[in-house]
Amino acid sequence: MSQPPSHFPGLRFLHSPGPTHVPKAVMDAIAEQPMDMADERLDPLIAACESGLRHVLKTDRAEVFIYTSNGHGLWEAVTVNLAAPGQKVLVASTGHFSDSWASMTQAMGVEVIRTSYREGYPIEPRDIEAALVADTAQEIVAVYVVHTDTASSITSDLPAIRQAMDRTGHRALLVADVVASLAAAQFEMDAWGVDVTLGASQKGLMCPPGLAFCAANARAIAVSKANPAHRFYWDWQRRLESPSYRKFCGTPPQNMLQGLNVAIGLIRTEGLDHVLARHRLFANAVHAAVDVWSQAGSLRYVCQVPPARSVSVTSIEVDGVDGELIRQVARQRYNVALAGGLGPFYGRVFRIGHLGDLSAPMVLGCLAAVEGTLQSLNVPIGSGGLDAALGVLNDQSSALTID
Amino acid sequence: MSQPPSHFPGLRFLHSPGPTHVPKAVMDAIAEQPMDMADERLDPLIAACESGLRHVLKTDRAEVFIYTSNGHGLWEAVTVNLAAPGQKVLVASTGHFSDSWASMTQAMGVEVIRTSYREGYPIEPRDIEAALVADTAQEIVAVYVVHTDTASSITSDLPAIRQAMDRTGHRALLVADVVASLAAAQFEMDAWGVDVTLGASQKGLMCPPGLAFCAANARAIAVSKANPAHRFYWDWQRRLESPSYRKFCGTPPQNMLQGLNVAIGLIRTEGLDHVLARHRLFANAVHAAVDVWSQAGSLRYVCQVPPARSVSVTSIEVDGVDGELIRQVARQRYNVALAGGLGPFYGRVFRIGHLGDLSAPMVLGCLAAVEGTLQSLNVPIGSGGLDAALGVLNDQSSALTID
Amino acid sequence: MSQPPSHFPGLRFLHSPGPTHVPKAVMDAIAEQPMDMADERLDPLIAACESGLRHVLKTDRAEVFIYTSNGHGLWEAVTVNLAAPGQKVLVASTGHFSDSWASMTQAMGVEVIRTSYREGYPIEPRDIEAALVADTAQEIVAVYVVHTDTASSITSDLPAIRQAMDRTGHRALLVADVVASLAAAQFEMDAWGVDVTLGASQKGLMCPPGLAFCAANARAIAVSKANPAHRFYWDWQRRLESPSYRKFCGTPPQNMLQGLNVAIGLIRTEGLDHVLARHRLFANAVHAAVDVWSQAGSLRYVCQVPPARSVSVTSIEVDGVDGELIRQVARQRYNVALAGGLGPFYGRVFRIGHLGDLSAPMVLGCLAAVEGTLQSLNVPIGSGGLDAALGVLNDQSSALTID
Amino acid sequence: MSQPPSHFPGLRFLHSPGPTHVPKAVMDAIAEQPMDMADERLDPLIAACESGLRHVLKTDRAEVFIYTSNGHGLWEAVTVNLAAPGQKVLVASTGHFSDSWASMTQAMGVEVIRTSYREGYPIEPRDIEAALVADTAQEIVAVYVVHTDTASSITSDLPAIRQAMDRTGHRALLVADVVASLAAAQFEMDAWGVDVTLGASQKGLMCPPGLAFCAANARAIAVSKANPAHRFYWDWQRRLESPSYRKFCGTPPQNMLQGLNVAIGLIRTEGLDHVLARHRLFANAVHAAVDVWSQAGSLRYVCQVPPARSVSVTSIEVDGVDGELIRQVARQRYNVALAGGLGPFYGRVFRIGHLGDLSAPMVLGCLAAVEGTLQSLNVPIGSGGLDAALGVLNDQSSALTID
Repeated sequence: MSQPPSHFPGLRFLHSPGPTHVPKAVMDAIAEQPMDMADERLDPLIAACESGLRHVLKTDRAEVFIYTSNGHGLWEAVTVNLAAPGQKVLVASTGHFSDSWASMTQAMGVEVIRTSYREGYPIEPRDIEAALVADTAQEIVAVYVVHTDTASSITSDLPAIRQAMDRTGHRALLVADVVASLAAAQFEMDAWGVDVTLGASQKGLMCPPGLAFCAANARAIAVSKANPAHRFYWDWQRRLESPSYRKFCGTPPQNMLQGLNVAIGLIRTEGLDHVLARHRLFANAVHAAVDVWSQAGSLRYVCQVPPARSVSVTSIEVDGVDGELIRQVARQRYNVALAGGLGPFYGRVFRIGHLGDLSAPMVLGCLAAVEGTLQSLNVPIGSGGLDAALGVLNDQSSALTID
Repeated sequence: MSQPPSHFPGLRFLHSPGPTHVPKAVMDAIAEQPMDMADERLDPLIAACESGLRHVLKTDRAEVFIYTSNGHGLWEAVTVNLAAPGQKVLVASTGHFSDSWASMTQAMGVEVIRTSYREGYPIEPRDIEAALVADTAQEIVAVYVVHTDTASSITSDLPAIRQAMDRTGHRALLVADVVASLAAAQFEMDAWGVDVTLGASQKGLMCPPGLAFCAANARAIAVSKANPAHRFYWDWQRRLESPSYRKFCGTPPQNMLQGLNVAIGLIRTEGLDHVLARHRLFANAVHAAVDVWSQAGSLRYVCQVPPARSVSVTSIEVDGVDGELIRQVARQRYNVALAGGLGPFYGRVFRIGHLGDLSAPMVLGCLAAVEGTLQSLNVPIGSGGLDAALGVLNDQSSALTID
Repeated sequence: MSQPPSHFPGLRFLHSPGPTHVPKAVMDAIAEQPMDMADERLDPLIAACESGLRHVLKTDRAEVFIYTSNGHGLWEAVTVNLAAPGQKVLVASTGHFSDSWASMTQAMGVEVIRTSYREGYPIEPRDIEAALVADTAQEIVAVYVVHTDTASSITSDLPAIRQAMDRTGHRALLVADVVASLAAAQFEMDAWGVDVTLGASQKGLMCPPGLAFCAANARAIAVSKANPAHRFYWDWQRRLESPSYRKFCGTPPQNMLQGLNVAIGLIRTEGLDHVLARHRLFANAVHAAVDVWSQAGSLRYVCQVPPARSVSVTSIEVDGVDGELIRQVARQRYNVALAGGLGPFYGRVFRIGHLGDLSAPMVLGCLAAVEGTLQSLNVPIGSGGLDAALGVLNDQSSALTID
Repeated sequence: MSQPPSHFPGLRFLHSPGPTHVPKAVMDAIAEQPMDMADERLDPLIAACESGLRHVLKTDRAEVFIYTSNGHGLWEAVTVNLAAPGQKVLVASTGHFSDSWASMTQAMGVEVIRTSYREGYPIEPRDIEAALVADTAQEIVAVYVVHTDTASSITSDLPAIRQAMDRTGHRALLVADVVASLAAAQFEMDAWGVDVTLGASQKGLMCPPGLAFCAANARAIAVSKANPAHRFYWDWQRRLESPSYRKFCGTPPQNMLQGLNVAIGLIRTEGLDHVLARHRLFANAVHAAVDVWSQAGSLRYVCQVPPARSVSVTSIEVDGVDGELIRQVARQRYNVALAGGLGPFYGRVFRIGHLGDLSAPMVLGCLAAVEGTLQSLNVPIGSGGLDAALGVLNDQSSALTID
């Protein structure tokens, strides 16, 4: 095997749906020397991260638990806090990520019920409703929902799911994984009635991977208190103890916290609404290009429902060429890192991530490189894809103007 | 409460036993932009970290599992891999950290047997021997040993413990937590017959907190395979699957891995033997000062057995003044962060960390600040403490000369 | 006036012809703590920078003088070393930069003769030949040539100029300013018979502004020795003294040297030939787009001679819209910094810099943003500009493939 | 020659009187990507640096000129702006630096008159007074004064010098080089009647080397306007033109400006008075140690007048051991970089720099390392040097307490 290159001239563009580009200010904060646990700056840092996450999650009420973990670890954290072996959760099927989450949940000894899965479509709230109605014994502890499944690039409708749950009167908690949507798509934990939210650092929050967190409201905390499942590292009760560094069950990941605090500060400076509008705009620009490309008939969105297309990432199915080859050419010839197809999509699909710390020319450089890659692989894409993207930016970018 | 200062002139010296000072080269590596999972640099990075850790652990044979976690998480990882609820482990009592580890183990449903604890003394290998002999049913799955307990600053004798275990013929695994001793004190996983080793990034490995790892030999892997305990994130079997980024059960903490790789490179460049000799030398210098100070009768080592005094940290008990006040004065007047007494030592003890990326004037600046702090609090320390430290450096530092 | 924004989401693309994008590795090196003058690392650093610059300049013989200065300072340095007040130099007119250099030279009391200037055309070697032939008294000390004048984006033919000079038998030195062409366009100081070369850090050398340098061969050094002009800071003789840090007439700019050393290391790693080929390729891509845009009749190259178009920067004249407005829209709407028209080109011209640490998607993102900007300002540019650029990259980029 | 080490464990302490330790926040700012000249952030950056320097210089009235240059370049800048070849300046002799400045001035064709030099003593104001009185033709254009000459570590009394000049009624300008004293010792440009001040980035201003600046009041600007000396790069008139980036005669050193702006922000945050008090305190601590060491009779201050001892640096003469050997041992054994003897002091003297971004343990670590070095070289220093330094810090450091 040849050695990886020690240096690329210029920047490699990172268009996975996470990890994403990290702003220099965040990296600078991470690179501050660590502190001892009694340093007078540590408690305010932890408090700032917690209140900052509440701001981004739009919750006043939830307890925030930040873990040295990745997102998969958080899945385990939520399960061991909410459900004991033998108990049940309902997993709303969205594809790759809901399947993984279900597998993990089963590995923890918890019984999983899944809604039926329809490729290319968001979660059908009535499926959840039906499953809860069928659970007359109220054995289902929680409904697990992946807000944006990055394999299909589909965002499901959380308020509609909440309403469907409410219609049943079932006490199951609504647990939403917003790892791929937070700080990109609209999300309102309190207003939408989400009981537990899971997130991670390396996507819309513009940090390196290495931190994950969840927020739990009083109902969820109460369920956790009553839950006898064995746990320690993930346990919410222990993490609610003071002093604040105990919240991390051992050494806090303070450098990552320093980065998270700055990243949230960048979001506050830009304004969360502006951040969401920027993601909407860039997603529109990407979709405008894909709309043109797809007219040539050789590629198409995985997501069949336009309003459900994610603002974070776009999954594109291509005929006649391996999605992994597209990635390879884009990487080697254009220094653009695209994402691949996951699970059943492997080889059929490639994905363009468009979330996090992005500016217009980053998105345009990525789209141009995708055009070049597809052309070089003789995938028909017509002409005018990039022009369509520019049209979106020219129509709408006044919202992004720097005054 | 007053706001923490936004800027200290100059450097605050960090003399906790972890986190420790992080070299700029490590920070620079952490601050490289993240990669997508298919980036051609990711697999070699993971492989380099694994082989680098094997080098530092002195093992050819063990599997290495690197987690996005802190050290406490690793305790849970090891327990859920080795022991199912209802099974037994023997925890060798060393004080604060063995107690915490035992509590966590119990929280996972595993029964814990503890050896008796004697404050100020290392683990007595015969206590372990006796406990294993008494376990005629061979129910004890593993013996958990904290190599260096930083609360007492005592390093126990792992080879002697191994020999004691071997004398019994018991099949229990030897599990050693070397979080606070690795890359500071001598350690040889294979030669010493350690079956599972636990470590973390933020001490002798000179990285920020946020990574932890364990290494397990074939016997331990076999025990894990047979263990039915529920687990997913921590599970060794799943992490042994290819491709290599799957080893992290989700997104790898690649920025931290980039840092770890550079940190191990620094250790290799300096030479592991030289790193250990440097820790020995600086510990000798600190101990020379403490020897002088203690002659005035108001302070003393927690560790009663000189050869068991850690090369990483020194716990000092003081009469007539609160250890937390010492820390506060050292921090506010001298910008030196010392560690405090843990558990029963709280208030009675302060600790000087002296491990990781240190040079002579860092150690000397810390010792001088401790002298100044104790003088300002009217703790009798005689005179000549720092001179004694200098004497050690002048006698021995030829080993550290830069040619 | 409104405050400048404290944060832009994502990257602002820098497409001035200098300063240019600086690689992180260079920034990391600059951010190393400074050293005292006797530090054992300082002399090797200086020596490495000097030999690295010789490598990039393709000279074995020239003395290299590195200054804490910008490029304009170097103009003064060269003049005070080569010519005393009252002596003469011949300035080959290229437009803005040759005019500035001539003005500075006159301000130093040196008489300037200029060749005639023809907008849109490179230096005519026969004009230099004629001026030297006319100088029967051999009073002209040196011929000053700007290799690439970034105002017009024209690169003149240095070997042809050398041959023209040689035909006259005149002893005047050939002094070439390669600030904007070095490490982008082909240049061979020794083989091309250039006596003095001037360069700066912030263009093809991928460093921040703050360093400039010249290289002088033995003939030039001899002229300098005989020159009575008052000088100290710029004086070559004093800088030839040992020890090496004296070469800087006071404190060396060591952090910038650390950066320069790494930057040259990146060039060596990539290979100077590859660096030049990469610049050629990206220039071809930009030119392919401009070729298409210009067919609509509203914009055109300033440079009328295709082979003389710079690989570093492209100056584009536009009808009916202010070049400064183009820059403003590109910056505010697209976060792309373009360059403007200098001197007589102000308002008539905008410029796209395409040199230094660039990758394909950086260039493509810039071109797409220029397309979007021109479209939004209703400048006719036809369609297919970006496709043409992609065509160039798809045809030629095998040279850039990362194996 | 052996290769310099590629890595030192821990920090090398930098105790030259410049360059000095650079805070991370300053390095982070320097490492921001450069901007094009029209970037909306550039003008405010330049304005902030100018007003920040005025704040530190305590001037409301002076024009500030910032150069890409080192301090020696500034000497040339001031001379070519103020004096034409054949004119006269009076250089107040302070030793090494006044001699170098005088040599440079002569090299520019300007006639230099020097006051008599007395080793170990500050400038005698009456000598200046006498020289001006003797200049009945008022030919002396300016009096050049080095505020702190770091070779001797003596700070002269600028207000007394101003008063001596005023007594004569001579119109000569007072030109003060505060490179080594600014932001360390008290200085008030306007109140003290200084006409021109020279400074540089790499000392009390806590930046890397690479920037220098001068401030000139209206009288000095008027002298400059009337001065026919040839100049361009250094010329004040051209630099007074708008737009602001023209103030740099070519590309501004924007990364260094970014650093300077942050460094001045750190000074403002700490408070200039607090910065000066901190320097006074640390100088007192160093002097307390030297007082003790010198009682053993083998070493002594170069400066014979205690109140004239610099707060930035201390020059120490030692018997029986080469000052360069002291530096070598301190560097190799203790990783502390001390400064050496300059000019006639070479080998007789070593120097401890104690200015810039320092905290108590940095100073203490340096002093302890000096003690260890001197002990290892058998230089008698008695005992108690470091205790005396601690005594100073314990008595006085309440001023430095972080609340």
